[in-house]
Amino acid sequence: MAVEKNNNGLQLLGFWVSPFAQRCHIALAEKGLSYESLEQDLSNKSELLLRANPVHKKIPVLLHGGRPICESLVILQYLDEAFPEASALLPSDPGARAHARFWAGFVDTKVFECGVRLWKRKAGSEPQVQARKEMVEALRTLDAELGDKPFLAGEAFGFVDVAVVPFAAWLVSYGRLGEFDVEEVCPRLVAWAERCGERESVAKSIHPPEKVWEFVGFLKNKLGDK
Amino acid sequence: MAVEKNNNGLQLLGFWVSPFAQRCHIALAEKGLSYESLEQDLSNKSELLLRANPVHKKIPVLLHGGRPICESLVILQYLDEAFPEASALLPSDPGARAHARFWAGFVDTKVFECGVRLWKRKAGSEPQVQARKEMVEALRTLDAELGDKPFLAGEAFGFVDVAVVPFAAWLVSYGRLGEFDVEEVCPRLVAWAERCGERESVAKSIHPPEKVWEFVGFLKNKLGDK
Repeated sequence: MAVEKNNNGLQLLGFWVSPFAQRCHIALAEKGLSYESLEQDLSNKSELLLRANPVHKKIPVLLHGGRPICESLVILQYLDEAFPEASALLPSDPGARAHARFWAGFVDTKVFECGVRLWKRKAGSEPQVQARKEMVEALRTLDAELGDKPFLAGEAFGFVDVAVVPFAAWLVSYGRLGEFDVEEVCPRLVAWAERCGERESVAKSIHPPEKVWEFVGFLKNKLGDK
Repeated sequence: MAVEKNNNGLQLLGFWVSPFAQRCHIALAEKGLSYESLEQDLSNKSELLLRANPVHKKIPVLLHGGRPICESLVILQYLDEAFPEASALLPSDPGARAHARFWAGFVDTKVFECGVRLWKRKAGSEPQVQARKEMVEALRTLDAELGDKPFLAGEAFGFVDVAVVPFAAWLVSYGRLGEFDVEEVCPRLVAWAERCGERESVAKSIHPPEKVWEFVGFLKNKLGDK
């Protein structure tokens, strides 16, 4: 990610393959806010990151005029609230906002969390088989929620699409780790991911599935159960 | 919880000892919204609960004119947005809102999650010892965040206090399970919990620590590692 001209006092501390950082890149692009991208070395965390997020010591962190905002979904909502003049990510209807927050949370607690167990636990072990089962169920649930809508948010790309789309690049890896056919499990989600990938905000923020798969190999090697 | 006169088409599906349901009771009381409290039998889930929250099949669920809103922090934000005329739980400043959401999330991912491992894992086992260590760290972090402020939200009781205060009744249980001195680990948090307990909204929604401890015994017996 190139360093862009910074007009808003915005800096994003991220890491290229992190779906949580990618959410923020996409949100900033969707809102048309220029910012400085500060790629972090997570094997040697910077003073800036440790100072900006002393509690979790994790990316992403948005700095706005130096003030840190942590946690990706908190950052997305902050961007809507601090820059109300830029196009909104969340809808205006309270029920629709609750719905969007619910599904963004679903991806974090179900899809991401299962995904970690899929690569971390030994292939074929009981916890990994359990993770596979839960991942298939989570993806089917998300596929049903999408249904025949063009986007998770409805007719237009919105908050919940921003929150979920970074995981689209992980689908191939999830399928290989869990030995299931992604196209069979969540065909509408696969078509949705392609549709989202046509947007410039998404295309420039996420990476090809094979790059993610390479990274998953690195993770398994470094942190997976032996 | 008595069934109150329902003026707003609001019903809350809850369970007496759940901190997540208690948050919603407190939020509704703080906003002065009357509602019907529908206590659920979690060992035999009602058709209403399964229909209202088919994804997680969990309480709390807020029904507003029959429309379900799930997940406690989503419900709190919904109440602010659907009833803007009632006093707000979240502050108006975007940075302060982000701060409140961050700390509410911290309690869910750190305190609650560690608490589950504390009662579920066998006393003295390596995972339980690890949970004890993390719980002490989480409580010290929260104590430092409170600092000398009267409330986590600042001068007045707010969103983050609503989100965190139900866990105050669990502190005694956490201390007993982890064999640590709560007063020593988080003295300011203990004083804050007493201050919060003087509010009617809190007093009528949470239960004495000894009732929680009894319930923890039931949980350990039913679902804990043998």
